[in-house]
Amino acid sequence: MFKNLAYLSTLPLALLASAAHADEGQWQPHQLPQLKAELKRIGIAIPAEQLADLSKHPMSAMVWLGNCSASFVSDAGLVVTNHHCGYSAIQRNSTPEHNYIADGFLAKTRAEELPGGPNTLIYVTDKVEDVTARVLKQVTPSMSGKQRHEAVENAIKQLVAECETGKFYRCSVPSFHRGLEYYRIRQMMIRDVRLVYAPANMIGDFGGDVDNYEWPRHVGDYSFLRAYVGKDGRPADPSPDNVPYHSKDFLVVSAAGLKNGDPVLLAGYPGRTSRYKLASEVRYARDIAYPVKVAELQADLDTIAAAAKANPAWEVRYASVAKSMHNVMKKTQGLMDGFARKDVAAIKDVQDAEFRAWYARQPNVSATMLAELDAVIAADMALSDEEFGWSVATNSDLLKSGRTLYRLALEAKKPDAEREPGFQQRDSSFIKARLNRLEQSYEGTVDQARFVAGLQRYAKLPKSMHAQGLDALLPAVDAVPALYQQSQLGQTAARVGWMDKDAAAIAASDDAFLKLSVRLNDVAMALEERRKEVDGNLERVIPQYMQAVIAWKKSQGKPVYPDANSTLRVTYGTVAPYSPRDGVTKGPFTTIEGIVEKHTGKEPFNAPQKLLEAIKAKRYGQFKDPVLGTVPVDFLTSADTTGGNSGSAVMNRHGELIGLNFDSTYESITKDWYFDRDITRAIHMDIRYMLWLMKEVDHADNVLKEMTIKYPTK
Amino acid sequence: MFKNLAYLSTLPLALLASAAHADEGQWQPHQLPQLKAELKRIGIAIPAEQLADLSKHPMSAMVWLGNCSASFVSDAGLVVTNHHCGYSAIQRNSTPEHNYIADGFLAKTRAEELPGGPNTLIYVTDKVEDVTARVLKQVTPSMSGKQRHEAVENAIKQLVAECETGKFYRCSVPSFHRGLEYYRIRQMMIRDVRLVYAPANMIGDFGGDVDNYEWPRHVGDYSFLRAYVGKDGRPADPSPDNVPYHSKDFLVVSAAGLKNGDPVLLAGYPGRTSRYKLASEVRYARDIAYPVKVAELQADLDTIAAAAKANPAWEVRYASVAKSMHNVMKKTQGLMDGFARKDVAAIKDVQDAEFRAWYARQPNVSATMLAELDAVIAADMALSDEEFGWSVATNSDLLKSGRTLYRLALEAKKPDAEREPGFQQRDSSFIKARLNRLEQSYEGTVDQARFVAGLQRYAKLPKSMHAQGLDALLPAVDAVPALYQQSQLGQTAARVGWMDKDAAAIAASDDAFLKLSVRLNDVAMALEERRKEVDGNLERVIPQYMQAVIAWKKSQGKPVYPDANSTLRVTYGTVAPYSPRDGVTKGPFTTIEGIVEKHTGKEPFNAPQKLLEAIKAKRYGQFKDPVLGTVPVDFLTSADTTGGNSGSAVMNRHGELIGLNFDSTYESITKDWYFDRDITRAIHMDIRYMLWLMKEVDHADNVLKEMTIKYPTK
Repeated sequence: MFKNLAYLSTLPLALLASAAHADEGQWQPHQLPQLKAELKRIGIAIPAEQLADLSKHPMSAMVWLGNCSASFVSDAGLVVTNHHCGYSAIQRNSTPEHNYIADGFLAKTRAEELPGGPNTLIYVTDKVEDVTARVLKQVTPSMSGKQRHEAVENAIKQLVAECETGKFYRCSVPSFHRGLEYYRIRQMMIRDVRLVYAPANMIGDFGGDVDNYEWPRHVGDYSFLRAYVGKDGRPADPSPDNVPYHSKDFLVVSAAGLKNGDPVLLAGYPGRTSRYKLASEVRYARDIAYPVKVAELQADLDTIAAAAKANPAWEVRYASVAKSMHNVMKKTQGLMDGFARKDVAAIKDVQDAEFRAWYARQPNVSATMLAELDAVIAADMALSDEEFGWSVATNSDLLKSGRTLYRLALEAKKPDAEREPGFQQRDSSFIKARLNRLEQSYEGTVDQARFVAGLQRYAKLPKSMHAQGLDALLPAVDAVPALYQQSQLGQTAARVGWMDKDAAAIAASDDAFLKLSVRLNDVAMALEERRKEVDGNLERVIPQYMQAVIAWKKSQGKPVYPDANSTLRVTYGTVAPYSPRDGVTKGPFTTIEGIVEKHTGKEPFNAPQKLLEAIKAKRYGQFKDPVLGTVPVDFLTSADTTGGNSGSAVMNRHGELIGLNFDSTYESITKDWYFDRDITRAIHMDIRYMLWLMKEVDHADNVLKEMTIKYPTK
Repeated sequence: MFKNLAYLSTLPLALLASAAHADEGQWQPHQLPQLKAELKRIGIAIPAEQLADLSKHPMSAMVWLGNCSASFVSDAGLVVTNHHCGYSAIQRNSTPEHNYIADGFLAKTRAEELPGGPNTLIYVTDKVEDVTARVLKQVTPSMSGKQRHEAVENAIKQLVAECETGKFYRCSVPSFHRGLEYYRIRQMMIRDVRLVYAPANMIGDFGGDVDNYEWPRHVGDYSFLRAYVGKDGRPADPSPDNVPYHSKDFLVVSAAGLKNGDPVLLAGYPGRTSRYKLASEVRYARDIAYPVKVAELQADLDTIAAAAKANPAWEVRYASVAKSMHNVMKKTQGLMDGFARKDVAAIKDVQDAEFRAWYARQPNVSATMLAELDAVIAADMALSDEEFGWSVATNSDLLKSGRTLYRLALEAKKPDAEREPGFQQRDSSFIKARLNRLEQSYEGTVDQARFVAGLQRYAKLPKSMHAQGLDALLPAVDAVPALYQQSQLGQTAARVGWMDKDAAAIAASDDAFLKLSVRLNDVAMALEERRKEVDGNLERVIPQYMQAVIAWKKSQGKPVYPDANSTLRVTYGTVAPYSPRDGVTKGPFTTIEGIVEKHTGKEPFNAPQKLLEAIKAKRYGQFKDPVLGTVPVDFLTSADTTGGNSGSAVMNRHGELIGLNFDSTYESITKDWYFDRDITRAIHMDIRYMLWLMKEVDHADNVLKEMTIKYPTK
């Protein structure tokens, strides 16, 4: 494989300069005009003001799937996202006869498109308002943490309630900078979403868990969905009568490709980052929270594996549970490795010292704010220990179901507006879906083993991780089998049926897991109350702190972006390789020949024959990169992404779709805490690989035809 | 570590072109004028005719150490080579009080220079003559293989005898192209060689076996020796009265450095390659010889480890034996991996088919040559099987010593000129040194375990690997302990003492291992006779074949270089990275910061504190590379090297020393059979790293002063 060298040999001299500015920040669209000069410098041709406007192209083409990002690519509601983001729709339509997971799926006509099911939803953000003043209106300085938290919560509930008119919209009021600002976001919720096209699993998930978070990568991580609405053009329950949604805006796809050093724009819904946490929080995560979390996940995975081994059907049922636990574990391990490689706490110490020195020089600032900050963070960490202990001690899906049912019933006694968020009427369908979905990933023998093992591990945790009052209420390990014999919650109909019962009925039930749920209620509620107190205090102090940090950064001419919170963000960067260690360079591109190199014929490296044949025959078509001399597969950029950015549109300087974000490198995992520009790289699928597969391998001509594709001029 | 990217970002556009011509061929110096255009194209400024002349600069500065290459770097006999090539001199002077291995050694004055011992010799090639006609003069077409082999051997012995006048010269008549040409090489043998300077082992062997054959590499693999001669300027036995040798020619050292794409020249003594072997030979090696060899080495290593565990002193004694077995095993495993990655046999099939088609079209060629070639190669492979079996069955140092002693005594009955090569008077001092040296790497308990285990493995080998007549003569496994009780050969004085005894005395001895050696003699001699028959046939047929191959290549305008045979060769190439797999690039440089990255504080990654401090303080001095921004350590080129090239001078376009060759990458190992220009890379130490260590870490100012160093002009 000498081709990559060819590529590197023609790197523009500008690479170093652009890479060195690579490109921290998950910006709220309205912030982009502050970055005008920077966007221009890296070569973005779209005016910053246009990018800031959610009602204009290209931002109005961006959608959210609830856990992934996606974008419209035709005016008939066609959406492209990752394969792993469309997976639930693929899985639910797969049967032994029609194994769409293994073989892929292509609807040749709209009539052939398959229902995505209740877990496949498309959210189109259509309104974002700053509601900070309204959220904080009832807050007074003398409030306790819990009072403050509840005042904010109530204000938010009201803001949400007045926004959610009918079933068309879903509204939320996320906080930015942990309470400094609140925005109300209105999203049109499309509930009839169908599967249009997905490649074979050994294209869409080639390399599987082995390659997860790794580079080099060779994944065609894409799938196509379509939004359907009622004939009136408004969201509607799934129905054969629905029609494709008319998406006024959509992305043009560019097959012209890109090369090392080229700028990219990326828009999507990053989930959660912790960039402004303090050194003490880094050390707590590094030295306490993450090591116990990894150990706990590993132990739980071992328990599942041992218990499920008895029956292949159980293994299948727990496969996706285990996969997602593996993913969390690898990410957490990556954070630990990253903290071991680079002393992020020490870097934060230096930043913090600089900040505190600057702060001390400012006139009229609180003398106690920083001490208060440190104290409330210490309280947060101590409470987190107990919450972790609770999660270890209650590691049973039946117990979790019982807790949900009883809590729901308790909340149902109150007027809807006063209920705990997550247990209001608006949440009922989601709770029901979750209770139903357990059917696919539950088996009594395995759950019992997990519960027993969790209780045993809990007993060995340090005292500080035992939730106050919990120990006396937990069942003895040898009493656990009887609980499973004396509970019906393992049966889906019985479990879901309890949703209609009131709290008194549940309290009177002789179902062992409902009884245990009732018994644990006081401790659970006490934990929750204390969490509200801590959160309320965090929400009071941290905005003051962040306000000071923002002023400090502003004094240096630097804008500040808020931590990710699953709201629409824009990031930008450049195509760039990186050096994981001295003497080795990775990326920026892989090629289809690398698939042959990795192919072993065994999962997860079992590429489909039709793919291998197309590669061997060098049927590159229009998708041959002029420098690589072949079809690119995946590539790296310096863009700032995190979980939730899966499926995000990667665009060229003109806002044309040239890739899909799907992962980041192992060395980048610590970016959730600290963005190290030298080694942080996001991994994207090159859209040319997708187009090539559609044309040369899967013959998805109808989907190709529906999109607007710009081919390079020869 | 972003620096390497910086480097790659400035690769000249020419890299691909030059790398694509990278640069197969270990050329006899006299061939270089044929490569004039190519040398000019890559930018070598020294005229090809000058490079071809062993009496002129720079070739007259090149020397051989018997197993390594080296070069003069001052007019007072100062020689620079690898650390691992000077290791024997370092080791023999090390004591617990003065641990020169761990701490390094620096003679601040000539008086402090330490004797290198009998195994440290410097050979200066001063004459090379084509003696093909004289070697083949007695050969007739009707001779059997054995007769032919002996006729050649006798002619060579005579040519050597008339050349070796006194103790000053060592002569040899190696064959080129397996018997097509013979050159007589006269080398002045300098027997008083002293250790001048060596860095600490954790610089000279940083990374140890873990990094062996790997990239990235961070080794300062250099040491300095000095040639001493008698006051008359001629080689002399070691003596305090000797004076430094006046080396008329020596290399100027350039600290100007080099960059990606720059040309290099490399001169040295590559040991052995098999580039012209047939597809059938590749398959035999790949499918039979290498797998059994690796299994045998592993089994023997396991036996040694288990037996030596009983006593730490034994472990030390077998450490270097095990190290060299590991090295052979890793190389053989690398060959197997390489053959699995790239089907070299299939490539050879294609080449062979092309050649045979061309051959069939030539007028007046032998109709039987190719069939004869195939037959004699089949015979060679079958005999190799038996020879392998013999080596497994006789895996005892005492038995090998006994065999040597008895054989020597048998040969001593003949006039010197008629004795077997290796057992003539000229070889006596080498045999004695070997028998003495065993003292350092022998322990009876371990040797006994190896012999027993070898006999047991031999019993399980397929019938084809049992040497004819051997099985009946081997001792039973339970008789082996008695052999060790009834032998004195484990004692050095006794062992060496037998060198003075005649064959009758040995035959009459009741030493168990001498008795066994006598008993095995007929089988050993029969194997040897059959080897001579096969070799004689190979030497008859292969030259005809090679002549045809050379004519075929000539018809395509391509010169042909002979396989390596430990004679002086020149190769050239360019500084170039490579891609071991799609999406990953390695090299071309490492930097001193990479040492800190690898440093664990535990061997083999335990860098000396003074080195770490100099790196952390960024005391780069004059040795900072302008592109890397720091001091380079090792680098990769496309030059064509193999074992024996260790210590070879790597020169810039003006013939100035800019590096020392010391290894090649794991992916390159198959180059001994097939030079794959895309992935074959030699690993060199950058001379700037050595100079930096000398200046900033080891303060070897006297040695720096003695060399002629060109510093870059600012």
